[in-house]
Amino acid sequence: MPRSDELTLIERFFRPLAGEGAFGLSDDAARLVPKSGYDQVITSDMIASGVHFLPDDPPDSIARKALRVNLSDLASKGADPFGYSLNIALGPEVNDGWIASFAAGLSDDQNRYGITMLGGDTISADTTLISITVIGLVPGGKMVHRFTAQPGDHLYVSGAIGAATAGLNLLTDPQSVFQQLASETRDSCISRYRVPVPRTELVPAIRSFARAAMDVSDGLIGDADKMAAASGCTGKIIFEDIPLAAGLDDRAFQSAAESLITGGDDYEILAGIPPENAIAFERAAADVKIPVCRIGWLAEGHLPVQVMRDGREMVLGRRAYVHTNRMDRLP
Amino acid sequence: MPRSDELTLIERFFRPLAGEGAFGLSDDAARLVPKSGYDQVITSDMIASGVHFLPDDPPDSIARKALRVNLSDLASKGADPFGYSLNIALGPEVNDGWIASFAAGLSDDQNRYGITMLGGDTISADTTLISITVIGLVPGGKMVHRFTAQPGDHLYVSGAIGAATAGLNLLTDPQSVFQQLASETRDSCISRYRVPVPRTELVPAIRSFARAAMDVSDGLIGDADKMAAASGCTGKIIFEDIPLAAGLDDRAFQSAAESLITGGDDYEILAGIPPENAIAFERAAADVKIPVCRIGWLAEGHLPVQVMRDGREMVLGRRAYVHTNRMDRLP
Repeated sequence: MPRSDELTLIERFFRPLAGEGAFGLSDDAARLVPKSGYDQVITSDMIASGVHFLPDDPPDSIARKALRVNLSDLASKGADPFGYSLNIALGPEVNDGWIASFAAGLSDDQNRYGITMLGGDTISADTTLISITVIGLVPGGKMVHRFTAQPGDHLYVSGAIGAATAGLNLLTDPQSVFQQLASETRDSCISRYRVPVPRTELVPAIRSFARAAMDVSDGLIGDADKMAAASGCTGKIIFEDIPLAAGLDDRAFQSAAESLITGGDDYEILAGIPPENAIAFERAAADVKIPVCRIGWLAEGHLPVQVMRDGREMVLGRRAYVHTNRMDRLP
Repeated sequence: MPRSDELTLIERFFRPLAGEGAFGLSDDAARLVPKSGYDQVITSDMIASGVHFLPDDPPDSIARKALRVNLSDLASKGADPFGYSLNIALGPEVNDGWIASFAAGLSDDQNRYGITMLGGDTISADTTLISITVIGLVPGGKMVHRFTAQPGDHLYVSGAIGAATAGLNLLTDPQSVFQQLASETRDSCISRYRVPVPRTELVPAIRSFARAAMDVSDGLIGDADKMAAASGCTGKIIFEDIPLAAGLDDRAFQSAAESLITGGDDYEILAGIPPENAIAFERAAADVKIPVCRIGWLAEGHLPVQVMRDGREMVLGRRAYVHTNRMDRLP
C-alpha cells in the first residue's frame, strides 16, 4: 500500500479529528477562546520509533501512547484535557493503512478523554516520530505543582507499578524472567507498556487534596527523588507498600524488584498529600474507583529518597529509567 | 565533544530560556493565565535534518528557522508572539557545542520577537528533528483567516519572493544558474533560506486591513491557490508585479522564474485586502518599513489561480514546493 501526499493525508485522516477552533485544519493556526475563570496547563512530549515504541507496535497503540503520555502529565497537574496539536514525522515504513489505524486510535481516545485536535504538521523523515502538545484547563490558581511538597506529607501512588517494565522486557528479551508469568498476565503487561492509562479520573481528588503531584514516567524511585529535590526535601519509601502490578509481587520476581520500581512507562500519579487530607484523598479516589496507596512520606533532609526493604535501606544500582536506542540491538 | 544526558542539557541550556509560567522547567507542565480580552492563536511546525535544513547548517540558524516558521504563521493570523514549547530529537551528530549554539539562537530570537519558552521535551533519536508549538495573542475575535477572502479583494504579498529557493539551489547544486549571482547576493539568498524573516511588524496592518491572510511557505502560486480554494473563489496574478528578491529579476534568470514563484521557504505574507482598505494597508506597511506589493486579485470562478506573463497565461509545470529527502542525494 502506498502513501498519499501530505495534503491528502490531512484531508482524509486528520481533518475528521479537528475540533472547535481548528477550522477543519483549513487555516494556518487554531483559535482558542480562553474559558473565563480557568488557567491553561500546557505540556509536550515526543516519542520515537525504536526508543519509546517498537517499530512493529500497532499504529493505533502508538497514537494512544503519544497522546496519553501527555494526558498523564495533565492529570498530575489537576488539569482536565482540552485540546492538542500533533506533529508527526513519517518514516519510510508508513503507508496509508498505517495512518488510518493511527488516526483511528486518536479518534477513539479523543472520545474517551474529551479532547480534540487543534492542528499540527505532517512531514516525511527517515524515522517515525510523534510530537504532541496538549492544553488542559484548571480553575484559576488551582494547578498542582511538583515543587510544592512539604516534609511530613504522605507519598501516595495511584494504580500499580511495574507492568510496563515487565511488558517491555517480554517484548525485547526471550530470556526475560517475566516469561514465566501466566499468558494473560504477560498480555496485560505488554498492553500496559504499549498503551498507558492516564489517571484522568483522579483529577478532582488531586486538585482538592494534593499539595504536590507529578506523573511517574521514568521510574518510581527516580521520580520521587525529583519531587523531593524540586521541593527542597527528601523522603522515605517502604518497598513492601509499593503496589506492584498483579502477578509481579510473586516471589519469583524478588530479584527483579529493583527493575520494576525504577523502570519507566508506569504513567501513574505520585502525590504529596498533607496528613490532614489523607482520608479525604483516599475517599475521593475510591469514589472514582482508582486505587491509591501510601508508599512513604516526605521529610526534611537531603537526597536521595531512602527506600526501605525488610527494615533495611535498599542499595539501588539505578534509580531511574533512561530511554536509549537499545531496541536496535535486539535479535 | 560528548553529549550530556537529557537532564543536564535542560538544566544548562534550556532552563535559562524559560519564561513566566514555565517554573524554570522544573514542573511537568507550564501554566498560562489567559489575558483578558484576547484570543489565543496556536500553530505547530516540525523541521527535520535533510528535509527542511541541511545537516551542516549552523545550529543557531536551525533554531531560528524552527521558531520563525511558526512566528510567520502567527503574523499572518494577526497574532503577536507569546510563548512556545520545544520538542527536540537529537541525532547522533549532536554534541553539547551544537546545543549551546542552538540555544543561543533561540535566546537571541526570544529577545527579538518577545517570546519565551513554556516547556518541551528532549529525546535521542536517529535523526535531528525539531517540533515547535507557538501560542500567540490576538484581540478577541480579531484573528485573520485564510478562508475569508472575497472576489474583488486585492492580493498583496510582503517583502520579496525567491531568495530562499535560490539559496537552497546554491547550497545543493554546483551547476545552479544562480551561481552567476554576485557573491553578496548569493550569501543573502543562502542566509534567507537558512533563516526566514517572519513579518511580525506587519501584524497591526494585517489585523486592521486584511480580509484574509496566510504565510507563503510552500510556493507563492500554490499558496495563492490554497487561499482561493479555502475561500471558494479563484484569482489572477500578474507575473511582472511579483516582487522578486534583489538580483533575481535579472534577465539571466528568466527561465528560472517558474521555480522562484513556486519554490518554498519565502515566509512572506499573502493577504486579501478589500479595495477600500488598500491605501490604508499600504500606508500601515510603509509605517513599519515592510514593502508590500499588489500582485493580483481574487475573482469568482474555479481554480487554479491564473498567472499572466506578457499578457498570456503561464503554463506552470508545478505550483507548489514539496519537501522531500532529496538532500540525501547530494554529492
